[in-house]
Amino acid sequence: MAKKNQSNRLVAQQKAGHGALSIFGPEAKKHDVMVGYVAMNVLKELEKLYPSLSFRYRTSISKEEINNALKKIDAELGQTLFVKDANIKPDGGLIEVKDDKENWRVVLVSEAKHQGKDIENVTRGIKVGVNNNQDFMVAGNAIERAHKNISEIANYMLNEGHFPYVLFLEGSNFITENVVVKRPNGETLTIRYDVGSLNRLDRLTAANYGMPINTNLCRNKFIESSGRMIMLQAASMFTQGAGGSWSENEMSEIMLDVAKTSIKILASDLFNQLTTR
Amino acid sequence: MAKKNQSNRLVAQQKAGHGALSIFGPEAKKHDVMVGYVAMNVLKELEKLYPSLSFRYRTSISKEEINNALKKIDAELGQTLFVKDANIKPDGGLIEVKDDKENWRVVLVSEAKHQGKDIENVTRGIKVGVNNNQDFMVAGNAIERAHKNISEIANYMLNEGHFPYVLFLEGSNFITENVVVKRPNGETLTIRYDVGSLNRLDRLTAANYGMPINTNLCRNKFIESSGRMIMLQAASMFTQGAGGSWSENEMSEIMLDVAKTSIKILASDLFNQLTTR
Repeated sequence: MAKKNQSNRLVAQQKAGHGALSIFGPEAKKHDVMVGYVAMNVLKELEKLYPSLSFRYRTSISKEEINNALKKIDAELGQTLFVKDANIKPDGGLIEVKDDKENWRVVLVSEAKHQGKDIENVTRGIKVGVNNNQDFMVAGNAIERAHKNISEIANYMLNEGHFPYVLFLEGSNFITENVVVKRPNGETLTIRYDVGSLNRLDRLTAANYGMPINTNLCRNKFIESSGRMIMLQAASMFTQGAGGSWSENEMSEIMLDVAKTSIKILASDLFNQLTTR
Repeated sequence: MAKKNQSNRLVAQQKAGHGALSIFGPEAKKHDVMVGYVAMNVLKELEKLYPSLSFRYRTSISKEEINNALKKIDAELGQTLFVKDANIKPDGGLIEVKDDKENWRVVLVSEAKHQGKDIENVTRGIKVGVNNNQDFMVAGNAIERAHKNISEIANYMLNEGHFPYVLFLEGSNFITENVVVKRPNGETLTIRYDVGSLNRLDRLTAANYGMPINTNLCRNKFIESSGRMIMLQAASMFTQGAGGSWSENEMSEIMLDVAKTSIKILASDLFNQLTTR
């Protein structure tokens, strides 16, 4: 029961912090807040699916913990820390499972990024640019910051065979097909997905080595290169290719799938708990 | 002679593009322009040091080339490209050497980032903040974007045993010791290096796995983790810890050191050129 209470309390806290459930409707802008809310529901789902396992949710991980994980692998790693309380806060937090040796192991990390309002702007008849006469806004590059947290969590999980990092993308900078939008006067306009001034997906794909997006890449890939084995930790990136918004259900399904993959990969280390009642 | 001509032409182009040599004095703000200029001089230095080798300098690398390098290692990698002419432009460009099989191999990639003007502001008596009454500006997080190019080049070099990526940092967000500055009225003020509102070094150290900064980390580290060998590609990050600016000589020395390390690691593949006259 302790576990259930923890997740209930967390959901209550989240609600208190960010307003009632209703703010998470389809028109909600708070994509990055929603992902944390969905993650906490995924935690409850995991507790139901695997009642013999213990899960926990947390919103941040300290740089010190990441350094300690690195140091355990090799004494040369994880040495630097400039700001003592530096920490990493993925939008959707982290879900962990307790293994048979009582270590917490990460099964899900999620982030959500919205970039590009061109669809909304055209639909509402809002022009942009210095002279307010352009249909489209030249895309920014803030999304490139997403690589930082991906690298941090990859380092924290360098010892693992899985990397359950899910990045949910939405907005006109992340479409994967042409989108036809209607101006208020009924005229239509096509937003192309393949133009350099709008699309920012190429700024992210280094994080999955150019493997397919909209794919669960949780299981690390091992490749042979120049006679050496190399482990690849790839982020699983999901985008609303037609310009829509992520719904709670869609996100939840993907997150659950990735978390289950993690648990499957970790099964040997959860064996006692999975097989004894 | 063809090589000499190429680098002379490039220096001439760089000068034409960014103004005369004099703009690169100690007071120059154009830290990121300077690094490209210094890189081209490093290329000339390398040509002198290794006259039997052929070098080239370029300012960008296309995402397509990176994808092709990834595909060669494994067909599942390097599949995605949304904007056809997407490319990566490290501030200081790339220096490559031609190996015995006529393939160009990267020996140096450099970037330079300046973030945090607190030292200049205090020295000049400029207050900041909404009400213009604060000494220090809360540091931004744009520097986190640096991880993107690091990941891209790491992917391009996944097949190599070296990673010659040099990142030069300067500005109050990257100091490693307390800096005492004087206000115009003679009063002194200490800028602390270890406060979360100013220091941004921890936002970068994921890129070198928390290994020491101000260190040449060009040679990839191989570690054993859970019975697997893992190759670490770490960026070599250098900072002006006391708040100063990088001089051309300092940058040049570091870049040359890293490029030489690359050439040493690549020596087997340059053997014919190095041993025949």
